Amino acid sequence: MWEQTIKQIQPISESWLNRAKERLDNLTKPRGSLGVLEEIAARVVAIRKEERPSINKKDVFVFAGDHDVVSEGVSAYPQEVTGLMVKNFLNGGAAINVLARSAGANVSIIDIGMKENIPNAQGLIKKNVRRGAHNIAKGPAMTVEEAEKAINVGIEMAEIAFSKRTTMIATGEMGIGNTTPSSALLSALLPAEVIDVTGKGTGLDDKGLHNKVKVIKKALEVNKSSMNNPVSTLAAVGGLEIAGICGLCLGGAARRMIVVVDGFISSAGALVAMRINPTVKDYLFFSHQSTETGHRIFFEKERIRPVLDLELRLGEGTGAALVMKIIEDALKIYNEMATFQEVGIKPGA
Amino acid sequence: MWEQTIKQIQPISESWLNRAKERLDNLTKPRGSLGVLEEIAARVVAIRKEERPSINKKDVFVFAGDHDVVSEGVSAYPQEVTGLMVKNFLNGGAAINVLARSAGANVSIIDIGMKENIPNAQGLIKKNVRRGAHNIAKGPAMTVEEAEKAINVGIEMAEIAFSKRTTMIATGEMGIGNTTPSSALLSALLPAEVIDVTGKGTGLDDKGLHNKVKVIKKALEVNKSSMNNPVSTLAAVGGLEIAGICGLCLGGAARRMIVVVDGFISSAGALVAMRINPTVKDYLFFSHQSTETGHRIFFEKERIRPVLDLELRLGEGTGAALVMKIIEDALKIYNEMATFQEVGIKPGA
Repeated sequence: MWEQTIKQIQPISESWLNRAKERLDNLTKPRGSLGVLEEIAARVVAIRKEERPSINKKDVFVFAGDHDVVSEGVSAYPQEVTGLMVKNFLNGGAAINVLARSAGANVSIIDIGMKENIPNAQGLIKKNVRRGAHNIAKGPAMTVEEAEKAINVGIEMAEIAFSKRTTMIATGEMGIGNTTPSSALLSALLPAEVIDVTGKGTGLDDKGLHNKVKVIKKALEVNKSSMNNPVSTLAAVGGLEIAGICGLCLGGAARRMIVVVDGFISSAGALVAMRINPTVKDYLFFSHQSTETGHRIFFEKERIRPVLDLELRLGEGTGAALVMKIIEDALKIYNEMATFQEVGIKPGA
Repeated sequence: MWEQTIKQIQPISESWLNRAKERLDNLTKPRGSLGVLEEIAARVVAIRKEERPSINKKDVFVFAGDHDVVSEGVSAYPQEVTGLMVKNFLNGGAAINVLARSAGANVSIIDIGMKENIPNAQGLIKKNVRRGAHNIAKGPAMTVEEAEKAINVGIEMAEIAFSKRTTMIATGEMGIGNTTPSSALLSALLPAEVIDVTGKGTGLDDKGLHNKVKVIKKALEVNKSSMNNPVSTLAAVGGLEIAGICGLCLGGAARRMIVVVDGFISSAGALVAMRINPTVKDYLFFSHQSTETGHRIFFEKERIRPVLDLELRLGEGTGAALVMKIIEDALKIYNEMATFQEVGIKPGA
C-alpha cells in the first residue's frame, strides 16, 4: 500500500504558487509585510489548487506506542504512563484535547503499538501492530514488515480523513521513551552526531542524558547492518507511533492535504517520510521549534523554518493544534483582505 | 488624568503567580513542558486574581496619526495613505479587520492625529489632538500639553473598554512615516545608537535608510534641550498615535487588563509607558518580533521575550490580534486540563 501511495505524491503547483503570490502582493499591505502568514497562504493555495481555499474539517491523529528501551533508563516516566495518558486523551483532559477543541479539530487516538490493551472507546482507533517496540539497544525495534504495516496504518488514517472531506490534518503522538528512537532516527537519517540530536526528553538529569546518548549509540551500532534504507532504519531504531506519523505524512501528501507536523518526535516521523519521498515536504507545515536538543539541528539541516517557538516540549500534537489556527488565519488574510485597486492606493514598495 | 492613572498601577500579585504555577505543575504534562503558554497563563492569573480567569470581551484600538517628517523622504508611501487605510479599516478590508474578526475582537479606529478629517463612521472614534505631528527634524512633534492630551485619549480608550467589561485589549496603529519617530524614541529612551534601531520601514532602499538615519539624528539633535523626561521626549520626537498607545498601556494596566502590544511602533509607545511607570510592564504581552531593525535591540535591552516571530512588519495591531488567540489558548490549558491526581499519574520530573 505505501509504495502505491508514494507514487501518487506530486510536487505542488508552481503556477498556483505564483498566482497566490500575485494576489498577496495586491492586498492592502506593504508587499511581504505579513511574512510567514503569506508564505503559508501561498503554499496552501498551491497544495489545494483553489482560488479561495478554505479549511473544511480538521483532524488530529495521535499515534500511541511503547518502547522497551525504557528499561535502559532513558525516560523520567514509567512505561505505564503511555496507557494512563491515552485514557486521559479519551476522557478529554489532556493538553491536546484542550487545544484541538479550541482549534475546532477532531482528535483520534490510534493504538498502533501500545503495551496495554485499552478497552474500546469513542475516539480510540485500534490498529495495534505489535505490543510495544523491542529494546533498540539490543536489536531492531520491529521487523520491516511490521514497520510497513505501521506506515500503512498512518496512510489509512489519512484516507479516513480524506473520505470525510478533511483538508487539514495534524500529527501527534504519545509514547513514554519515544525521544530516544527519534534521536536515533535523526542521527541516522540527517545524519548527525548522536550527542547533537539527543536531549533530556521529559526530564532527565545530566547523568540520565549521558546514559541516553550511550544507549542510542549502542542501538545504532547493534542495528547497523540492517539499516539500509529509510524503512529498514525506521524498523531498526524507530517506533510504531513514529512509523504511523510517517504514514500519515505520506498519505496526507498523496491526497493533497495540509499536513501539520507537531514537535520533535513527529519531525522524526516526517523525516522518514521525506527520505522515502522528498516531495512530501511540499505538504508539511512544521509547527514549532521544540526545546528538545536536536530539533534545531533537524531544522537547520533540512532548511525548514518552523512557525512557532514557544519553548514547548510536550508532544501529543499540541504545537500542531496551535498552528492549525495560524494556517486558518493566513487563509483568511488571503481570502478576505481588500486589494489596492479596491481602495484606491498605488501598491508602492 | 494620566498622573492619577499611573498611581493606580499595582505590581501583579506574587501569591497569585505562585498559586498559578502550582496548578500548572499539577496538570497532566511534564512540568513546564508547555513553555511560554504556561508563563502567559500564570501571568494572566496574577493580573486578574481569579481562580479560573476567562477572557470576556476583546478590543483592538488602532490609533491613527500623521507625521510631517515624511517630507524628509523617510517613507516609501505618501502621507495620504494614512487616510486611505483608515477608510479601508472602516470598511473591514484590512489585515487587522480580518485577524480581529478571527480572534473575536472588536476594532476601534481612533483619529488621534490624522491630517485628514474623516467623516463619522461606525468604528471611528474622533479624538483628534492635532492634525499631524510636526516635522521632528525641524522641531518638536507636538507640545507637552498635546502629548499629555494624546496620552489621556489612550487612557480614555482603556476606560471605555473597562466599562464594557473587556478584559483583553490590543494596541494598533496606522501612520505613514511612524517608524521614524519610533526609532527616535527607542534611541532616546533605551538608549541606543540611531543606526542600531533604524530600519527600512515599509520599503526604503539602502539610500533611503541612510537618509532616514540622518533625519533621526537631526531630530534628536534639534530637540535635545527639551527631552528631559519620558513625556517631553515623546512630545519632542514621538507621534500622536504613539502617545495614544502609551496611554492605552497605562490605562489598561491601571484597570488590570491584559494588554497585548503589537509590533515596532506599538513597542515604542509601550516603552514610553514603561519609562513613565516601570510596573506597567507586568501587564504587557509583547506579541511579536517584527523584522524592523531595532525591535530586536528593544527586546534585548528590555529583557522581553516576544510570543511570535512570524517576520511581520505590517503594524495595525495584526501581531497582537494573532496573540490574543494564543493567550486564550493558554488560559484554556490552565482551566480545562486534568490534574495528575485526577488521572492517577505521579507527577514525575
